[in-house]
Amino acid sequence: MSTSRIAVYSGTFDPFTLGHDDVVRRAAGLFDQLVIAVAVAHHKKTLFSLDVRVQQVRNATENIANVSVMAFDGLMMDFCAAQNACAVVRGIRNLTDFDYEAQMAAMNRKLRPQVETVFLLPDAPLACISSTLVREISKLGGQVGQMVSPQVAAALAHVHEKQGA
Amino acid sequence: MSTSRIAVYSGTFDPFTLGHDDVVRRAAGLFDQLVIAVAVAHHKKTLFSLDVRVQQVRNATENIANVSVMAFDGLMMDFCAAQNACAVVRGIRNLTDFDYEAQMAAMNRKLRPQVETVFLLPDAPLACISSTLVREISKLGGQVGQMVSPQVAAALAHVHEKQGA
Amino acid sequence: MSTSRIAVYSGTFDPFTLGHDDVVRRAAGLFDQLVIAVAVAHHKKTLFSLDVRVQQVRNATENIANVSVMAFDGLMMDFCAAQNACAVVRGIRNLTDFDYEAQMAAMNRKLRPQVETVFLLPDAPLACISSTLVREISKLGGQVGQMVSPQVAAALAHVHEKQGA
Amino acid sequence: MSTSRIAVYSGTFDPFTLGHDDVVRRAAGLFDQLVIAVAVAHHKKTLFSLDVRVQQVRNATENIANVSVMAFDGLMMDFCAAQNACAVVRGIRNLTDFDYEAQMAAMNRKLRPQVETVFLLPDAPLACISSTLVREISKLGGQVGQMVSPQVAAALAHVHEKQGA
Amino acid sequence: MSTSRIAVYSGTFDPFTLGHDDVVRRAAGLFDQLVIAVAVAHHKKTLFSLDVRVQQVRNATENIANVSVMAFDGLMMDFCAAQNACAVVRGIRNLTDFDYEAQMAAMNRKLRPQVETVFLLPDAPLACISSTLVREISKLGGQVGQMVSPQVAAALAHVHEKQGA
Amino acid sequence: MSTSRIAVYSGTFDPFTLGHDDVVRRAAGLFDQLVIAVAVAHHKKTLFSLDVRVQQVRNATENIANVSVMAFDGLMMDFCAAQNACAVVRGIRNLTDFDYEAQMAAMNRKLRPQVETVFLLPDAPLACISSTLVREISKLGGQVGQMVSPQVAAALAHVHEKQGA
Repeated sequence: MSTSRIAVYSGTFDPFTLGHDDVVRRAAGLFDQLVIAVAVAHHKKTLFSLDVRVQQVRNATENIANVSVMAFDGLMMDFCAAQNACAVVRGIRNLTDFDYEAQMAAMNRKLRPQVETVFLLPDAPLACISSTLVREISKLGGQVGQMVSPQVAAALAHVHEKQGA
Repeated sequence: MSTSRIAVYSGTFDPFTLGHDDVVRRAAGLFDQLVIAVAVAHHKKTLFSLDVRVQQVRNATENIANVSVMAFDGLMMDFCAAQNACAVVRGIRNLTDFDYEAQMAAMNRKLRPQVETVFLLPDAPLACISSTLVREISKLGGQVGQMVSPQVAAALAHVHEKQGA
Repeated sequence: MSTSRIAVYSGTFDPFTLGHDDVVRRAAGLFDQLVIAVAVAHHKKTLFSLDVRVQQVRNATENIANVSVMAFDGLMMDFCAAQNACAVVRGIRNLTDFDYEAQMAAMNRKLRPQVETVFLLPDAPLACISSTLVREISKLGGQVGQMVSPQVAAALAHVHEKQGA
Repeated sequence: MSTSRIAVYSGTFDPFTLGHDDVVRRAAGLFDQLVIAVAVAHHKKTLFSLDVRVQQVRNATENIANVSVMAFDGLMMDFCAAQNACAVVRGIRNLTDFDYEAQMAAMNRKLRPQVETVFLLPDAPLACISSTLVREISKLGGQVGQMVSPQVAAALAHVHEKQGA
Repeated sequence: MSTSRIAVYSGTFDPFTLGHDDVVRRAAGLFDQLVIAVAVAHHKKTLFSLDVRVQQVRNATENIANVSVMAFDGLMMDFCAAQNACAVVRGIRNLTDFDYEAQMAAMNRKLRPQVETVFLLPDAPLACISSTLVREISKLGGQVGQMVSPQVAAALAHVHEKQGA
Repeated sequence: MSTSRIAVYSGTFDPFTLGHDDVVRRAAGLFDQLVIAVAVAHHKKTLFSLDVRVQQVRNATENIANVSVMAFDGLMMDFCAAQNACAVVRGIRNLTDFDYEAQMAAMNRKLRPQVETVFLLPDAPLACISSTLVREISKLGGQVGQMVSPQVAAALAHVHEKQGA
């Protein structure tokens, strides 16, 4: 009999990109359950509200049986403990990402040694995608269809239209 | 018969440094025309106005026959298309620069595959210069004569004098 | 009911260090079974024979229920397929490691997209340990007690004594 | 007769962490005097006031004979010259740190070639600690006892209590 | 009237991969002529002879009008001078590549300041390909069809068959 | 009264370059005595014999009062202990250097915690110089006058002449 293993994949997902989607699918194949934790993100102004971001992630992942989506606030390691997670999953796109994530992982290990940080590589053509760049490109009228789902692309277009940007 | 090849070198140039100047001269030797695109930079407060920045770049490059200077707003890849540019030139000072620029280049390739990103190395003694550090050093009363042209150094001194900093 | 998930952790382990040991224990907590694959390493002359290396890894891991140790030859991705593994585990000590491992992982993904590469961080004080440095230090008469198990330290001392080094 | 050599170790120290403490002790062993320069930090809002930060550093280092603590404002290289320092000490935790610090060092060398920048590595288990992460973890109610002294941990708890965070 | 600009792209090409092919096509779009310089490589034993390597590159690039292929021996910068080249093109796959290539470029600039080193990024899915890994995978019986042309894949299979590997 | 502080700067110095020379002069300004330790280098075939390398370093540094030159064999940390050194000095040219040197420093700290590793930056125009590249360029007939002293350049030319290379 094997233990049921739960992993957490967290982020602000403002918006959820095809790069995030790729990491989710990889992680969902490695653990029994994957909880996607959508951060409230008090300290930065997000383009999409928490509710919209949670809904976007749900729409993108509703066809993956062992994935659930939750909002979360507070310390990631406390959330992991509350979820009985054995691992946090991080997608690593480049060395700057790795350098920062390795520091975070070492700090988190001090807080909860029993929660392991697991690093995955997104698919190469998706490795350049970041939510920040997607927002900027969309704001300037660029096409983001290779970077996000059609629903997210439409939502971005709608927001920027309303802002007259 | 060879095609006339146009490249774009873009930045905020707040201010234009000897590092930028070095990249411009290298790039001007590789392409038939080099368009320096001075970004409006809506999203950050610049020390010098767009007009002043454009003028500083013009002063610095007026003796290079195949270089022109333009202000630009919007998506860099759209600007390149409008200019019929085959390449965007980026100066790379260190690995953090490269990591970021490689991500940007891959995103830009999704937007306009026909515009190539070309990376050049500035001259070694100039590789440490950044506009941000130049502004900070100047504000704190440091000498920036090895980092910018005399005209730009004078302009920095003048601005900081007026601000009483 | 959850699927039984198998991961592979491979290396030359010449010798098996406390850094390897740390990665094994972390990986064993994330998967149902962990197969440690000791590479034949045709292309380089090892200090310890394949049999000795396999035995060293077995001794180090005999108290971990879900770990098994095997020698392997050939293509790592073929070995993973033969073991029905869903993942290869790699310990990452620094950015040079990451850069190389990311390349390998992307190549392996071309060969077997269904086998995911999973990166783990060793415990910080062990991150500097490499088999190569352990062999060199031991050869020059240095103490390797903080880098390998007492049994491996004794075996290293014994080998270097015999070589009169 | 040997010259008395003075080095400067500067930072915002908001708050002073066990990582800073480790670098101070290493640097104090390499130079005759070590001046810890606590930056006023006009450009960012600190959690602790300058006076409190200076006092925290003094408390942490009062038992090290050749260390003194001073507040400083202005250009670091001018401060070094005023102190007759031959070196600036920088702790390097990872490659991103190194990349940035190497740029700063090269700029500072332009300003004052006679002041050398010296890089030291903190102890491995402390290399992940940053003041920024300590403040965030503390704000979210996490335990920072492995990252700062008990006095600093208490001060952090007190501040966040008052802010009702 | 524009000057005719010549660039050199050099390597051992043992074998020529789809990653090399991608860089060639990008570089050929930026310069009037691209000379591919196939290195004799005295100091390392190549899998394919110089003649075979030159032929493989010719086969791969015969449909690109402004590309020529030559063997070369000696100092790359001397070859560039003999070809009247204004630039050397280097493909950069990751940060380790960049770090090494930046060093080479700075050394080459000391030798011939008038030849610029130009860095290009290969297409993301090809960035992981290296000739070394291709040889190893092929030797161990792996499929290299996503990494090299069908002709090169056949040549690799043929060589390894003959070696009974 | 200040303690007399001794530092060690070690290497193979095959040959001693202007980059090494620069690091020596910087280190000599930070410590009371600097011992340059020329490694026997059993494991690699050097171009110059140990005696010649020691002599080259002596010639280069004879005008620096507090520098001495010694051959050494065995474990660097044992040599440091025998010299009563408080520090090992390492020149860092780029991130790959740093990554490797940080690993070595952490290993050395395990062996002798009382010997600190101190990292210095060479002057920017010298940061690209490596003994390996100097040997290769010289062998291929390139000019190395910007990379080594005239004496070393002559010695390189002489060796390669004799080898008919």
